[in-house]
Amino acid sequence: MKKILVIHGPNLNLLGKREPEVYGKITIDQINKKLKEIAMKNKVDLEVFQSNHEGEIVDKIGNAKKACTALLINPAAYTHTSVAIRDAILATDIPTVEVHLSNIYSREDFRHNSLIAPVAKGQISGFGLDSYIYGLEAAIKLAKGYENKT
Amino acid sequence: MKKILVIHGPNLNLLGKREPEVYGKITIDQINKKLKEIAMKNKVDLEVFQSNHEGEIVDKIGNAKKACTALLINPAAYTHTSVAIRDAILATDIPTVEVHLSNIYSREDFRHNSLIAPVAKGQISGFGLDSYIYGLEAAIKLAKGYENKT
Amino acid sequence: MKKILVIHGPNLNLLGKREPEVYGKITIDQINKKLKEIAMKNKVDLEVFQSNHEGEIVDKIGNAKKACTALLINPAAYTHTSVAIRDAILATDIPTVEVHLSNIYSREDFRHNSLIAPVAKGQISGFGLDSYIYGLEAAIKLAKGYENKT
Amino acid sequence: MKKILVIHGPNLNLLGKREPEVYGKITIDQINKKLKEIAMKNKVDLEVFQSNHEGEIVDKIGNAKKACTALLINPAAYTHTSVAIRDAILATDIPTVEVHLSNIYSREDFRHNSLIAPVAKGQISGFGLDSYIYGLEAAIKLAKGYENKT
Amino acid sequence: MKKILVIHGPNLNLLGKREPEVYGKITIDQINKKLKEIAMKNKVDLEVFQSNHEGEIVDKIGNAKKACTALLINPAAYTHTSVAIRDAILATDIPTVEVHLSNIYSREDFRHNSLIAPVAKGQISGFGLDSYIYGLEAAIKLAKGYENKT
Amino acid sequence: MKKILVIHGPNLNLLGKREPEVYGKITIDQINKKLKEIAMKNKVDLEVFQSNHEGEIVDKIGNAKKACTALLINPAAYTHTSVAIRDAILATDIPTVEVHLSNIYSREDFRHNSLIAPVAKGQISGFGLDSYIYGLEAAIKLAKGYENKT
Amino acid sequence: MKKILVIHGPNLNLLGKREPEVYGKITIDQINKKLKEIAMKNKVDLEVFQSNHEGEIVDKIGNAKKACTALLINPAAYTHTSVAIRDAILATDIPTVEVHLSNIYSREDFRHNSLIAPVAKGQISGFGLDSYIYGLEAAIKLAKGYENKT
Amino acid sequence: MKKILVIHGPNLNLLGKREPEVYGKITIDQINKKLKEIAMKNKVDLEVFQSNHEGEIVDKIGNAKKACTALLINPAAYTHTSVAIRDAILATDIPTVEVHLSNIYSREDFRHNSLIAPVAKGQISGFGLDSYIYGLEAAIKLAKGYENKT
Amino acid sequence: MKKILVIHGPNLNLLGKREPEVYGKITIDQINKKLKEIAMKNKVDLEVFQSNHEGEIVDKIGNAKKACTALLINPAAYTHTSVAIRDAILATDIPTVEVHLSNIYSREDFRHNSLIAPVAKGQISGFGLDSYIYGLEAAIKLAKGYENKT
Amino acid sequence: MKKILVIHGPNLNLLGKREPEVYGKITIDQINKKLKEIAMKNKVDLEVFQSNHEGEIVDKIGNAKKACTALLINPAAYTHTSVAIRDAILATDIPTVEVHLSNIYSREDFRHNSLIAPVAKGQISGFGLDSYIYGLEAAIKLAKGYENKT
Amino acid sequence: MKKILVIHGPNLNLLGKREPEVYGKITIDQINKKLKEIAMKNKVDLEVFQSNHEGEIVDKIGNAKKACTALLINPAAYTHTSVAIRDAILATDIPTVEVHLSNIYSREDFRHNSLIAPVAKGQISGFGLDSYIYGLEAAIKLAKGYENKT
Amino acid sequence: MKKILVIHGPNLNLLGKREPEVYGKITIDQINKKLKEIAMKNKVDLEVFQSNHEGEIVDKIGNAKKACTALLINPAAYTHTSVAIRDAILATDIPTVEVHLSNIYSREDFRHNSLIAPVAKGQISGFGLDSYIYGLEAAIKLAKGYENKT
Repeated sequence: MKKILVIHGPNLNLLGKREPEVYGKITIDQINKKLKEIAMKNKVDLEVFQSNHEGEIVDKIGNAKKACTALLINPAAYTHTSVAIRDAILATDIPTVEVHLSNIYSREDFRHNSLIAPVAKGQISGFGLDSYIYGLEAAIKLAKGYENKT
Repeated sequence: MKKILVIHGPNLNLLGKREPEVYGKITIDQINKKLKEIAMKNKVDLEVFQSNHEGEIVDKIGNAKKACTALLINPAAYTHTSVAIRDAILATDIPTVEVHLSNIYSREDFRHNSLIAPVAKGQISGFGLDSYIYGLEAAIKLAKGYENKT
Repeated sequence: MKKILVIHGPNLNLLGKREPEVYGKITIDQINKKLKEIAMKNKVDLEVFQSNHEGEIVDKIGNAKKACTALLINPAAYTHTSVAIRDAILATDIPTVEVHLSNIYSREDFRHNSLIAPVAKGQISGFGLDSYIYGLEAAIKLAKGYENKT
Repeated sequence: MKKILVIHGPNLNLLGKREPEVYGKITIDQINKKLKEIAMKNKVDLEVFQSNHEGEIVDKIGNAKKACTALLINPAAYTHTSVAIRDAILATDIPTVEVHLSNIYSREDFRHNSLIAPVAKGQISGFGLDSYIYGLEAAIKLAKGYENKT
Repeated sequence: MKKILVIHGPNLNLLGKREPEVYGKITIDQINKKLKEIAMKNKVDLEVFQSNHEGEIVDKIGNAKKACTALLINPAAYTHTSVAIRDAILATDIPTVEVHLSNIYSREDFRHNSLIAPVAKGQISGFGLDSYIYGLEAAIKLAKGYENKT
Repeated sequence: MKKILVIHGPNLNLLGKREPEVYGKITIDQINKKLKEIAMKNKVDLEVFQSNHEGEIVDKIGNAKKACTALLINPAAYTHTSVAIRDAILATDIPTVEVHLSNIYSREDFRHNSLIAPVAKGQISGFGLDSYIYGLEAAIKLAKGYENKT
Repeated sequence: MKKILVIHGPNLNLLGKREPEVYGKITIDQINKKLKEIAMKNKVDLEVFQSNHEGEIVDKIGNAKKACTALLINPAAYTHTSVAIRDAILATDIPTVEVHLSNIYSREDFRHNSLIAPVAKGQISGFGLDSYIYGLEAAIKLAKGYENKT
Repeated sequence: MKKILVIHGPNLNLLGKREPEVYGKITIDQINKKLKEIAMKNKVDLEVFQSNHEGEIVDKIGNAKKACTALLINPAAYTHTSVAIRDAILATDIPTVEVHLSNIYSREDFRHNSLIAPVAKGQISGFGLDSYIYGLEAAIKLAKGYENKT
Repeated sequence: MKKILVIHGPNLNLLGKREPEVYGKITIDQINKKLKEIAMKNKVDLEVFQSNHEGEIVDKIGNAKKACTALLINPAAYTHTSVAIRDAILATDIPTVEVHLSNIYSREDFRHNSLIAPVAKGQISGFGLDSYIYGLEAAIKLAKGYENKT
Repeated sequence: MKKILVIHGPNLNLLGKREPEVYGKITIDQINKKLKEIAMKNKVDLEVFQSNHEGEIVDKIGNAKKACTALLINPAAYTHTSVAIRDAILATDIPTVEVHLSNIYSREDFRHNSLIAPVAKGQISGFGLDSYIYGLEAAIKLAKGYENKT
Repeated sequence: MKKILVIHGPNLNLLGKREPEVYGKITIDQINKKLKEIAMKNKVDLEVFQSNHEGEIVDKIGNAKKACTALLINPAAYTHTSVAIRDAILATDIPTVEVHLSNIYSREDFRHNSLIAPVAKGQISGFGLDSYIYGLEAAIKLAKGYENKT
Repeated sequence: MKKILVIHGPNLNLLGKREPEVYGKITIDQINKKLKEIAMKNKVDLEVFQSNHEGEIVDKIGNAKKACTALLINPAAYTHTSVAIRDAILATDIPTVEVHLSNIYSREDFRHNSLIAPVAKGQISGFGLDSYIYGLEAAIKLAKGYENKT
């Protein structure tokens, strides 16, 4: 069975408590539960991982090379500062979908630039939980080898 | 019944013929057919519009104020140059979803900046036809008034 | 009798409905009615034109060369993006007054730069309907050939 | 009776003698005489002040808080360099109209940016004596509490 | 017979009347007449089109895909602002020659950058009518499939 | 009893040994001892933490949400590169005081910009041990709910 | 007895009246009273000076060379524009502490850069009255010759 | 008989051998032979010069003042770095045509800016040998004093 | 007898005491004495003025219009920030020589840009007292109407 | 015996598997084996360390202060983002050699700037395994105290 | 026998005399002697060339195309300004190693950017004579066709 | 007898013929004659050199190390582009005076930056022949070892 790795970046463990006017009231557990339902329905395995450590995320992606066939990542703050995560995605060459709960383009200037986007297949930003849902659907198609340019 | 306006920006009439290595082989008619199926299933009306003219797109959005409750737009080249379309979205205040077939963040530098994104609810980029499908789903939720921050 | 051309740029047809906290509640018809009263009092002709199309505005200015002796323009969104309107003003060499309802200098950064201002005689920004009234008075003087440097 | 403060910035005492091809032949006394006629007709008081000293202008605005209900200012060279005058306007919170004799947007690059404009109600630039006249009319309305967004 | 599309951008309809010290006294009809003579001599068809509308130019190029084998374009003001025309050239993949009457590199800074040049085969700038003549000769060779790198 | 979290960023474990001409000869243990004396005198609890790991600092701040009522942080090198620490402060919304031993504004250019300062209550820079002492006093007031704008 | 010069920059005479949401309700007299108490307790002399004039502040610092052994300055708006005050501090070489009531780093971009900071011993920003209190304590230590790098 | 100076800049001696995918297979001797045929037909003299030395090119242009009536130059790498060649053209005031074999606007960013173009009459870029041919025709017209703005 | 105005900008009253490694040990009185000797020998009058106030310098230049035929100015810190002094020089149109004791181009970046230089006849920088001496000689020639371009 | 610390930065554990067209097929174990042979031959000790964690690398360098006399580091992605590693090198003051397998100057723009290089003795980039070999030789000389400026 | 060309750029003839604190005391003759020993040992020919002339270096590289199989270059000042040397390396396509005696990344800002590095195989900077030695070893491998990515 | 080297940069051989409205009508021979008279009067030797070749100027300065005790240079176009001449001055460490006939600060932007000025003792710009005369006087003092900071 195909396996998809889901990575939640820094501070997403605080979801629901953190700035609800920006990120909503949903918690990370609720997101994960929803994602697992979708995975089950689509008959793919899901490995879920949250970390505040850039290095742990790099480790995780590096080790995923064999086991996982697609990556769904919300890099959060590391979106804008981590060349190491970008390099890990390049190095493992796993097809990657980047998601954001909030619309990063209507926030501070320094959040408008993503170091991850140029090495991802695509990016979804601004739809709260739905960003993850659409993102997982896209990742499943990538994992199954569907051509996303029809 | 809620009505959603779908706008395809400049050169999208050429889809399928235009740079297939970037945009895929799908045509605009095939996209529209797929979107209409989804709309029917979700019991919303769909108005579809393509134009190469910035002014016609501005007209269309301005006139949509009463009839439509959400906007799905692929602004194509006008993503990067049109303050007028941005202003039309602001002026009518219709909730808007921005979509792109290709990943605009892995292309030329001048395509990394969207004038539309800061006034949209969210943006989806890089998943070909699926960008439109996820986008329409998001627009339907906006039209029906679901809170997208759960 | 001298004739003055008044051009309202994109989205100004929505005036009164559009973002009233920025642009006020006045409609374009009310502005035009007021301008015509002033014109009548000053014994000048007035041609009024609104368009969301950059090309139509360029056409209009190009054709005004013979008939009109001054131009009053609120270029709205095209203020910041249209080299073509700037070139049309240069090409016809009609003395031009640029007006804005809101103070463009207290809004987003990209609204601080006007491509039109360097080729206009002067600019009035931030006084709502009064921006147009002062602007028309200035345009009338230009049309009548009064030296505005006393 | 409402009182309006008129401030002429640095070098405006030289008006009429200074670069007549840019600023015209009118003198500061002629401007002040004209402004006083308008004030009298509108039944408002006028205090006129010219200084080449940034600090004196800051003092003047700071002290105007109680006595004056609107400010008409031609900040001249300090338009582009004085955070202190900007702060004085913010601190006293008197509604302010910024005027310029010449069109600052068709001159050197460093004259295109105004530190004062973002804290003013509006700006008028390029109409010689008429810039002051329209500006005073706008200031009178502000002083009398007319809503300038109709 | 091979057909070449000639597009004249915004304000070129005013040629001869517009800023003669920059653009000369020649009219667009005189240019077209000269180009047609050359076409006839070279046994190629010529379609000539002038528009002030970015959208119409995009339409024209999009529709030219089948009928035309080369494009000669003076994008005028749209040289510096139109991603849509650039995308239309990319989308149709017709070999393109960019021409300018005046030397755009000795004019204002914002005229030094061409969005069209990177997708054209070559650019000719500064030789008045001769810019068009050399440009048409180059376009004819491209249409006939001559290798321009000898 | 109110509890205050003190975080020392990367390389501060080397204090006293590291570049004494920039940072002085004091060690981190001496700083902590002094801070604890002040805390005791003011009847607040103190938790002290040093880490070279961005992720551990983010973890620490995230977990402090319930236990601590103010944060005193010397982010050291992460001052200039960590959006994640900035986001952790925003997410937990604990009032924060930023301190630096040396004057970061008289050092290399890249040390002049702090990503933390905009989300802190205030910043103290350049007074060696005294930066921490003043900072702790400020943090104590914040913890006790004194209004720092008097 | 050591003497310390306290300089309040432009508009600080308006304190308490000026933008209370930014600067608080405290007046300059209350600040000075508090500072004098601290000075008395520490057995140092205090000279207090407020001016809206850049030149007067430069004069004051220039003349302080002999009489004063430390300088406490809130340069306010001149923080961002005055090379002359910076040069006066360099010229007299009196150890200097820079303070700000509000956190200049969470305000407009142009307030993030201090021309004074690189020539000061340290900077304190954002703690209202406490910024002055900590600043005076630091200035007293500098005046008494305590090494601030412990 | 009018004489035209043709200058080939650095590395053009390697033509035909150098990066044929960029510059084609033609050699400098073949270019010169073709240019001489055209010159003969037009009854103008041709002096041809190639150098890798910025100083020699400056010498050549400086000495051409009397003998030559037009200059055809492919400045190659010096296009982007030589103020000295620009000054030589200004100093001698010989009408100049700038040519490039490849389209410099579709290459690396640092090749998009020409220091020569603002002092040339016009520029031709991207047509291989034909760039030289059109350029020589333009230079001949300039040499014979034909007005190129018709 | 021709009269030359000499202006010493801010902090120059401190000369000899201020940073002797940058400005040397000479005092302003010694400079003035030397300048007066040269003036006497050349039979021109000299008015000498020092001020730390931008406004006073602007006043002085404005009033010099009739009495003085040349201006020698060391604008010191105002070199880099004063548009008002620049405008005063433009307004009075007195030929101006700018001098600096130290080499402003080997100091901090913000001292490399002079707002005064573009409106001066010339600039002398880096020769201590000799900068003034050469500068006065140049000013005398300008006052006497010698053409300095031989 | 002198000891040299070798640090491999993030993703280098993937070497041989990661983008072989950029980094080659060699594995980190093969590199380490080769480095140990050289160390043995030169009679120096070698400690080898790989980590994807910025904080662990900072820890390692901080702790190396006593034990190691030189540092050989391939900072990989942290080259471009880590002020903390730079500070660790400054703090411990161990002579450092920076190496890169690929030529970072022929890759993406954001890889052209190294935060580490200014605090290293030297940098070697682009020679694959040989970058490490030359780097170790240089580090051995630094460890043994040979003057590398002969 | 393979031949390697060694080029020493401008001012390297002064080595040993020039700024010994930056470049050391070694002379160019001593460097060349050492390089020749290594060449002999490796059985490769060495041609050594020093010039202060950009054009001569371009000539040399252009002529090396046939005779030499690798290039070792210290471009010195031309590192930062010469597009012509870059083009010569591209044109001849000889594998190139760039070396610098000093660490260019710890010097002035304008020395941080190399125009040569992107077209070289690799760069070695900061190891004095050893930069040349490592560089020659790398060049010999390139000349002999060893794959440097193992 | 002390010897001073005078270097005239590119295109100065054309003086008198070149753009007389910028550079005046004086020839290089007249300048040299005047400089020699001054040298004779001051009992110093003068070597005069003009070249359009950057490399020759670098050679000249390099060789001057022993023979000359001061350098007077008008680097002309190389002022703005030559790191090599800057390095030559640094390498030989001869005290240098930079002169310009015209005021480089009132010309094009790219002429405002001098690469030479930071390594010169001082710069004189804008006084025609007098720039050279003042410059030679300054160079003579430097040659004789007079302290120019009095």
